[in-house]
Amino acid sequence: MPHINENFLKLKAGYLFPEIARRVNAYCESHPDADVIRLGIGDVTEPLPPTICEAMHRAVDEMGKQESFRGYGPEQGYRFLRDAIVEHAYTSRGAEVSPDEVFVSDGSKCDTGNILDIFGADNVVAVTDPVYPVYVDTNVMAGRSGPADESGRYEGLIYIPVTAENEFVPRIPERHVDLIYLCYPNNPTGTVATRETLARWVEYAAAEQAVILFDAAYEAFITDPEIPHSIYEIPGARNVAIEFHSFSKNAGFTGTRCAYTVVPKSLTGRTASGETQPLHPLWNRRHCTKFNGVSYIVQRGAEASFSPEGKQQIDGLIDFYLTNARLLREGLEGVGITVYGGVNAPYVWLKTPGGESSWTFFDRLLETAHLVGTPGSGFGAAGEGYFRLSAFNSREQVEEAVRRLHRTLA
Amino acid sequence: MPHINENFLKLKAGYLFPEIARRVNAYCESHPDADVIRLGIGDVTEPLPPTICEAMHRAVDEMGKQESFRGYGPEQGYRFLRDAIVEHAYTSRGAEVSPDEVFVSDGSKCDTGNILDIFGADNVVAVTDPVYPVYVDTNVMAGRSGPADESGRYEGLIYIPVTAENEFVPRIPERHVDLIYLCYPNNPTGTVATRETLARWVEYAAAEQAVILFDAAYEAFITDPEIPHSIYEIPGARNVAIEFHSFSKNAGFTGTRCAYTVVPKSLTGRTASGETQPLHPLWNRRHCTKFNGVSYIVQRGAEASFSPEGKQQIDGLIDFYLTNARLLREGLEGVGITVYGGVNAPYVWLKTPGGESSWTFFDRLLETAHLVGTPGSGFGAAGEGYFRLSAFNSREQVEEAVRRLHRTLA
Repeated sequence: MPHINENFLKLKAGYLFPEIARRVNAYCESHPDADVIRLGIGDVTEPLPPTICEAMHRAVDEMGKQESFRGYGPEQGYRFLRDAIVEHAYTSRGAEVSPDEVFVSDGSKCDTGNILDIFGADNVVAVTDPVYPVYVDTNVMAGRSGPADESGRYEGLIYIPVTAENEFVPRIPERHVDLIYLCYPNNPTGTVATRETLARWVEYAAAEQAVILFDAAYEAFITDPEIPHSIYEIPGARNVAIEFHSFSKNAGFTGTRCAYTVVPKSLTGRTASGETQPLHPLWNRRHCTKFNGVSYIVQRGAEASFSPEGKQQIDGLIDFYLTNARLLREGLEGVGITVYGGVNAPYVWLKTPGGESSWTFFDRLLETAHLVGTPGSGFGAAGEGYFRLSAFNSREQVEEAVRRLHRTLA
Repeated sequence: MPHINENFLKLKAGYLFPEIARRVNAYCESHPDADVIRLGIGDVTEPLPPTICEAMHRAVDEMGKQESFRGYGPEQGYRFLRDAIVEHAYTSRGAEVSPDEVFVSDGSKCDTGNILDIFGADNVVAVTDPVYPVYVDTNVMAGRSGPADESGRYEGLIYIPVTAENEFVPRIPERHVDLIYLCYPNNPTGTVATRETLARWVEYAAAEQAVILFDAAYEAFITDPEIPHSIYEIPGARNVAIEFHSFSKNAGFTGTRCAYTVVPKSLTGRTASGETQPLHPLWNRRHCTKFNGVSYIVQRGAEASFSPEGKQQIDGLIDFYLTNARLLREGLEGVGITVYGGVNAPYVWLKTPGGESSWTFFDRLLETAHLVGTPGSGFGAAGEGYFRLSAFNSREQVEEAVRRLHRTLA
């Protein structure tokens, strides 16, 4: 019988969101009349903007005609999309990225996991705590950790707590690490990184010759002009950072699937014998060998998100969700809950009342208010005692959620 | 600096198809007037069937409306598609597969590479030679081989020659292997496996407790009623085989992207300590952690391929490409070339005239006939002296290709 990859057996229970789905489904089955409001998964709820739908209709029509049909596209994405990404996400912000450094993909979740293929198994990996679980789980699966302890922390990974005590600013490690995951605006805490914070990380990475894996999936929610949208707005970042972007949370592509990853050509790793190797050709090889490009129809939709009408429609969506976040924040504050995030991000991160555990609070909210959120401890040991509410829902549902929070927590 | 995955450095040159593209582009740049006909990559050329386009238009409209918008779908694919797959690809052929054993993905290339994540690095891997390069390259990248020798064969992989000498029937190994890749109808040789051949492999895999990775991407081209479409038509295969299917070559989805992989729940692997572990939960975990589902719009298109109209339209496409294959076969035979495949498959596999090397023949065809094919040696050492022509092109281009072959080779 083939040997399995035994690293999978180190993984704790199910991936967080399937576990939440399991509990919610079980509750709904035994309480079929419960009108459950889901503020758990960070899944958008508003329809795709009309400009994007029109672009996809046109692309479907093209695919149905001999003269405009498209088979395999470039694995890295069509130039029309890579050019639009560079212009609107980088050049317009004074960040230097060239189109052939952009790799279009079907999701940032996929890319943050797949990027590990190009790195050796012996690298030391640092994550913030709490953290998006995929960064941790994919490293465990790739053999970069020992077993987990009782709190869910894996031996061999470096955890950098981000909590109210340090105002959610991750402290620079006092030791060497090779790979660092940073996510800003942050999932799950909804906090942002200032230019100074990012500059300190770029400086640290340069000194340690580490690589920052920067997840910017939520950058569109930044409204504060002082907060960088891309790590490449920081001088020197091209030498130390890979950046992940997604169309999921701005253009509403969670069910449509498009994302991109930037691997600057100036980025390097090394062999065991100390030889320097550029990372760009390694990722290009990985991408061409294990991926076959994003659907042409979807790429045309993503391109339309950068058109003047597309941008305006997306601004409307962002504004809508940020208003939801404000309502949740204000509602929670109104019953004396301490709240973080939810200003330049679609997530509200709250301290559970009376030091209740995250999962106890989850079950209580589900059972008494029929509200689903995400237990902070699901994102890491330092998330224990915290809870995430997502602003991705209709206005009506968010307003109803606020009323229920008042009733349950007041 | 992070350590890179040094296994990548063992990979020979570029992946085959980018290398072909490079040579063709170089030739076209220096000969801008050359009217090059491409029969190289196995990329479909006919437009998407109207029924599929209509389904995708409806899905785009749904995504544009509040009440029918869909965010994240199930990572494994929507039930409507998994049910249709089971009904039409398996139940109708007497093969037992349940919908929760089907994992919808964005491509078989991706899946045949990604499946390796769930297996340990120390498994012995067997491939036929010639072979679809992705099977080999992804194993090399995952560290299951030593360096390549001059012929391009990697140390540690088991190569099973399939050539005219053995009538393209891969011989059962006399030693133990853990993982075996089989692809039928075969890419690149265009040959098929009889029920007896597959039964022998299933028997071998059962005896050795090996797992067969069965790539059925071209099954729709089988017209001979005696040839199995799925390995699960063979008794016992559920205990030894994972099967990969794609919508690329039947429904024309090379640029639209949808595929599926079947991992039966009865399939097992083992830990180093000898404990048996089912493979299905491992792949499910991998799929949920490193993938986020296929675009809803595309899944609706794939579903439509199983409707009565969709099937009829696809039958028309298959018939069209198979007629192309016949024209190529007959054309080559008419100038005395020995030809294989091209009957239940869209690929024609020919012996180069006069024992010319595959790449020499490639360059000669490109330069004298402005025809692009694929050098057999690009698929493995045993492919040297062979050449692949693809039937994926318009009738007009195929007829012109046949005329040029006559002029060049007669």
